[in-house]
Amino acid sequence: MVLPSFNDIQTAFIRINKTVHHTPVLTSESINSLLGAELFFKCENFQKAGAFKYRGATHAVLSLSDEEIRYGVATHSSGNHAAALALAAKKRGVKCFVAMPRTAPPVKIDAVKEYGAEITFCEPNLSSREKTLAEILKKTGAVFIHPYDNFQVICGQGTAALEFLEEEPALEIMLVPVGGGGILSGSAITAKAVNPDIKVIGCEPANADDASRSFHSGKIQPSHDPNTIADGLLTSLSPLTFEIIQHKVDDILTVTETSIIKAMRLIWERMKIIAEPSSAVALAVLLEHPRLFRQKRTGIILTGGNIDLTNLPFGQK
Amino acid sequence: MVLPSFNDIQTAFIRINKTVHHTPVLTSESINSLLGAELFFKCENFQKAGAFKYRGATHAVLSLSDEEIRYGVATHSSGNHAAALALAAKKRGVKCFVAMPRTAPPVKIDAVKEYGAEITFCEPNLSSREKTLAEILKKTGAVFIHPYDNFQVICGQGTAALEFLEEEPALEIMLVPVGGGGILSGSAITAKAVNPDIKVIGCEPANADDASRSFHSGKIQPSHDPNTIADGLLTSLSPLTFEIIQHKVDDILTVTETSIIKAMRLIWERMKIIAEPSSAVALAVLLEHPRLFRQKRTGIILTGGNIDLTNLPFGQK
Repeated sequence: MVLPSFNDIQTAFIRINKTVHHTPVLTSESINSLLGAELFFKCENFQKAGAFKYRGATHAVLSLSDEEIRYGVATHSSGNHAAALALAAKKRGVKCFVAMPRTAPPVKIDAVKEYGAEITFCEPNLSSREKTLAEILKKTGAVFIHPYDNFQVICGQGTAALEFLEEEPALEIMLVPVGGGGILSGSAITAKAVNPDIKVIGCEPANADDASRSFHSGKIQPSHDPNTIADGLLTSLSPLTFEIIQHKVDDILTVTETSIIKAMRLIWERMKIIAEPSSAVALAVLLEHPRLFRQKRTGIILTGGNIDLTNLPFGQK
Repeated sequence: MVLPSFNDIQTAFIRINKTVHHTPVLTSESINSLLGAELFFKCENFQKAGAFKYRGATHAVLSLSDEEIRYGVATHSSGNHAAALALAAKKRGVKCFVAMPRTAPPVKIDAVKEYGAEITFCEPNLSSREKTLAEILKKTGAVFIHPYDNFQVICGQGTAALEFLEEEPALEIMLVPVGGGGILSGSAITAKAVNPDIKVIGCEPANADDASRSFHSGKIQPSHDPNTIADGLLTSLSPLTFEIIQHKVDDILTVTETSIIKAMRLIWERMKIIAEPSSAVALAVLLEHPRLFRQKRTGIILTGGNIDLTNLPFGQK
């Protein structure tokens, strides 16, 4: 299996540099003093289409020749990758087809529509997603851009950590959410190349802990009915992302749903920014294991900000 | 009546420069294309204590001598000014006493407590606020820092527009929410001094339209049971702010509650930042009067980001 190198990520960065937002790195005096930590937040919730996914999708789309991409691109995704690919395709002037579970958050479905992609709804399980996608590919001739089991996508995702370390080179730890492993594997390649001593830690909901089980057993483990508010982290590692994670990541820690909601609320209330639950999983790790991070310059990738405002988990007054 | 000059605001800026956040100016491609406008948002929701009020409160606190401030400071406020004054007093190492209506949003009460101020609850009307405050002043000897009918406070508030115009000197219009008129009057002094051709427009909920009525009648008009989701804009103009607004402001426009909520949702969903309802009133004016702003470089002051997340107006799914 050919794995992306840091050089590939640097090349991706040059290719997408003018197309993606250089997202800001924010700090919060108030969260630092509450947790006794020194935190830096890379705000991919401010990325185009509202998530880091736009980096990988744009890079995949820009890596195809006019000939290769003439029938458009296609994917299956419950949300952020679909919206990102739809926007990237729109900017390149090609069609985009998406197989989307009918249970995906309405706000994410609306975004995909707004960017002009053609949606085919399927059942919320992998076999239905794959079957629906196969039909789309056969009918349209579009190129499949997998949300994370894709070399060019991973290279694109790795550019977020590159910008992060350019701005904060002295980070000692980097916390990255893990679903399918695209942003975790890309970040780990970048981080270890820039600083071999940095610790890269994957952050996962305990209710969708396949990456943690795979990492600790050394073999890809299937998901068991993952059920978490972090709707971007329901997917499982792929052969490609697992291979990278095994070699480059230091640990994967899991957190409860309660901690995820608590972390998300802290981000909203103290930083006045909107991070979706999948983003908050990294800060939740810090809430559950504060001692690991005390006195350490810790970077957190806030992966996205797409959330249904009519269905928030903060409860009623 | 001695009115603050632009020179006074520049002096205030030097005095508080290292104490306040230089808040970012954000833009949103998505909101611009939706509204056919060119908007710049000055994000005072990222200010310390979560609102522009920290500028005025800090400036007032720093303007007092050690002798004058030895018994602390006091105010009445339903929220943001109280929190700002509490934090400013804490940083100077003096006591802060607050008369706060018992109906103030819990998140604002909690902030005031967290910054260490002593709260006395009162009824949610001006006479109870004033009576409670008078008792506090008599008992403690603290200096009263009015939320807006205060020369030094207005000078501090005027520094937000100063930073804004330093970053975006070519603004043609500036939209500023108006409650008691502190940020509107301070912004207008600054904006007209920097560029006499800029239009400064006050933005007010129709359900709390005393500033609009006062402005258009040329005489301070009382509030009639103001009832708006924009809880920071319930207060009425004071002699000082009214005088400045009459001379420096071009118009005051009012908006419905529906527009305020719609504008707030746009900010949250498209910009991924948290603005409180009082902040969203300025974008609501743009939603109701899009033609006034087409092709104009329009600046919006997002005044604050303090809101109770358990009681949001976005409805249920």
